[in-house]
Amino acid sequence: MDYRSMFEDAVDTLRQEKRYRVFADLERIAGSFPRARYRDDSDNARDITIWCSNDYLGMGQHEKVVASMQEAAGRLGVGAGGTRNISGTNRPLVELERSLADLHRKEGALVFTSGFVSNEAAISTIARLLPDCVIYSDQLNHASMIQGVRQSGMQRHIFRHNDMAHLRELLAATDRKRPKLICFESVYSMDGDIAPIKEICDLAEEFGALTYIDEVHAVGLYGPRGGGIAEREGLTDRIDIIEGTLAKGFGVMGGYITANKSIVDAVRSYAPEFIFTTALPPALCAAARTSIEHLKTSNAERTQHKRQAQLTKDILRDAGLPVMTNETHIVPLLVGDARQCKAASDMLLEKHNIYIQPINYPTVPKGTERLRITPTPLHSDEMIFELRHALISVWASLELPRERASETITASKLTSGDLTLPTVGG
Amino acid sequence: MDYRSMFEDAVDTLRQEKRYRVFADLERIAGSFPRARYRDDSDNARDITIWCSNDYLGMGQHEKVVASMQEAAGRLGVGAGGTRNISGTNRPLVELERSLADLHRKEGALVFTSGFVSNEAAISTIARLLPDCVIYSDQLNHASMIQGVRQSGMQRHIFRHNDMAHLRELLAATDRKRPKLICFESVYSMDGDIAPIKEICDLAEEFGALTYIDEVHAVGLYGPRGGGIAEREGLTDRIDIIEGTLAKGFGVMGGYITANKSIVDAVRSYAPEFIFTTALPPALCAAARTSIEHLKTSNAERTQHKRQAQLTKDILRDAGLPVMTNETHIVPLLVGDARQCKAASDMLLEKHNIYIQPINYPTVPKGTERLRITPTPLHSDEMIFELRHALISVWASLELPRERASETITASKLTSGDLTLPTVGG
Repeated sequence: MDYRSMFEDAVDTLRQEKRYRVFADLERIAGSFPRARYRDDSDNARDITIWCSNDYLGMGQHEKVVASMQEAAGRLGVGAGGTRNISGTNRPLVELERSLADLHRKEGALVFTSGFVSNEAAISTIARLLPDCVIYSDQLNHASMIQGVRQSGMQRHIFRHNDMAHLRELLAATDRKRPKLICFESVYSMDGDIAPIKEICDLAEEFGALTYIDEVHAVGLYGPRGGGIAEREGLTDRIDIIEGTLAKGFGVMGGYITANKSIVDAVRSYAPEFIFTTALPPALCAAARTSIEHLKTSNAERTQHKRQAQLTKDILRDAGLPVMTNETHIVPLLVGDARQCKAASDMLLEKHNIYIQPINYPTVPKGTERLRITPTPLHSDEMIFELRHALISVWASLELPRERASETITASKLTSGDLTLPTVGG
Repeated sequence: MDYRSMFEDAVDTLRQEKRYRVFADLERIAGSFPRARYRDDSDNARDITIWCSNDYLGMGQHEKVVASMQEAAGRLGVGAGGTRNISGTNRPLVELERSLADLHRKEGALVFTSGFVSNEAAISTIARLLPDCVIYSDQLNHASMIQGVRQSGMQRHIFRHNDMAHLRELLAATDRKRPKLICFESVYSMDGDIAPIKEICDLAEEFGALTYIDEVHAVGLYGPRGGGIAEREGLTDRIDIIEGTLAKGFGVMGGYITANKSIVDAVRSYAPEFIFTTALPPALCAAARTSIEHLKTSNAERTQHKRQAQLTKDILRDAGLPVMTNETHIVPLLVGDARQCKAASDMLLEKHNIYIQPINYPTVPKGTERLRITPTPLHSDEMIFELRHALISVWASLELPRERASETITASKLTSGDLTLPTVGG
């Protein structure tokens, strides 16, 4: 049995479709973010600027957060020592969960090792515990939510992206007596568009459904205390389960849910992904909590983040670069072809020392391949102008089309209507 | 729709079955392990001794490992900043994967956020990429392996625990032309027994199957360089995929696989659990690598670990306590009843300042409820005698049976033949 060639064939398929990924070897430098050290194939190092980090606010290098990890590692060691049940529940983790429950004004919180696991574990467990539950899942939900939905084994309906008429239709067609769970995101990370949260809550109320929101691209970034879009809109108490991450706005790693005590206790007690996993190290929990608490009271990062994101959009759009319109911090730049998208990314790195990785199918629909730019508060105005310059040069070299300044591109125009689910992306 | 009571009912079921878990709030103290600070329900703190940690060698507080995390956090920050593809592949992570590949003498390695995720992602992805694959899974495989097997959607056969005749029978009954994957563990964590690795490899060779071994309870602990049981037995090159953890013997957190390049590349390219998850923070990778490299050359921890585990077994058995026999570092003490197991654990903590959490159904079969004791190199001889004293006292208070010193209890006598899979445990 020639197993090796079976695996090689699978990978060759990706190569042929120009979806084979080579990870850039980058070394972040605390204190210099978004500058980082890049090593090429020959192990030659040089400094570059990262323009696609999900450390949206640069909290991963925040002095207080770094000090917090160092202090806790020195005092408590580097690991938790076991699952939550097997001596893994440590004081910084208990405090982190309290901090998260407070952030979202919920009764409880539960921490996982990643946002992916929190979605998979929470959605599948919640749905399984509700007899004969039906799940309503937005068409563009993240792969981790899709995995949670599938793993539950419960009946599922996929509603067209942010399409309230479609959601209503699906809810109305279901027996009123069946438990229902609506799963959606606040900020969709590839287009940067926002869900109609209030309308979803209204429908949930009308049809007696639970609401599950993924705020991973919003926590820390939006709301007066960094509680996300739901907090900004004053809708937190209408959402039953809020899922978030410690890895993006908060700059560390890990995922979580917050909800009322009964839901948190049920997931805690039943989800195998939670039960059988070693707890987050105390040092990591301490760092995450410091970051969350800092962002509860400090608005400086959010204000500057908003300014730099808007400035980036304005400057690139004024240069006729095809910025896709949205109301968030994400700046997608349309390329529309996998090969050219990769070429643009390579050229930015090789010629301009700018790192933006290409986003191709199936993370986004074919024909909407893009560069996904994420300005942070630490990208200076000068860096934004350097980016503009580099992109104009790359666009010219690759003969990519420029737009008139007035033309706007919206995600909805581009998103194909197909309901197939992504299997590779990230 | 009264959702709250649905979740409460689910949790009440666990309470009625005496399986509801309350996590002990423990604070590890670097430099004092296995001593830790325990906080009771009233938030009163006192020092206790942990006897059930999976930080088997105490590496979570090793000076070099702690210093490594602190240094890397100061230099590189506390987070990775994104998925591996989105600027998350950092230098310490690349070096960690090289260190792991070298540990197991394989071409490549891939790191995940947990052992649970590494099993789920690797098994399901590998099986899915092999057309019409059949999986053979040991009956007592860990919940994460079961999840991987199920998630693959491929045909599966569960063979009786360590039963080579049954495995042969199942392999022989399958079309020779179909790809096959045999999944098993080296050390089974609840009984502490060891798989017949050589015999499994022989069968794999005879029937043309791939071999997947979970060495999470063995890496760091066994083999001349800490490469696990397969290394100790000289069988590394006959195993196709070795899965391990950074959280137990190595004391930090995270999981991994090592294999040939084609397998690693295929999992890297296709597993959504990997693709869509933020990479491990550089500081964590640096700490893990330091721990691994230390244990490649230092045998002191392994030697002392073996001594203290054997001493614990001998002393408890001489006292007539029902130690379940095995050849590893795990010391299971049979109680045989969920309520008494919990009572014994509570009494050890309240009266003797000893923490050993109870292991009940469904982590282990009903009737085999136990205290699972894990001596480390840092448990002194004095601590072992204290443990003996405390257990004798608890056994007397609860009127639990003592054995004659000569009587031995083997796991195989106790394990029920039922093939149902655990859903709660850890």
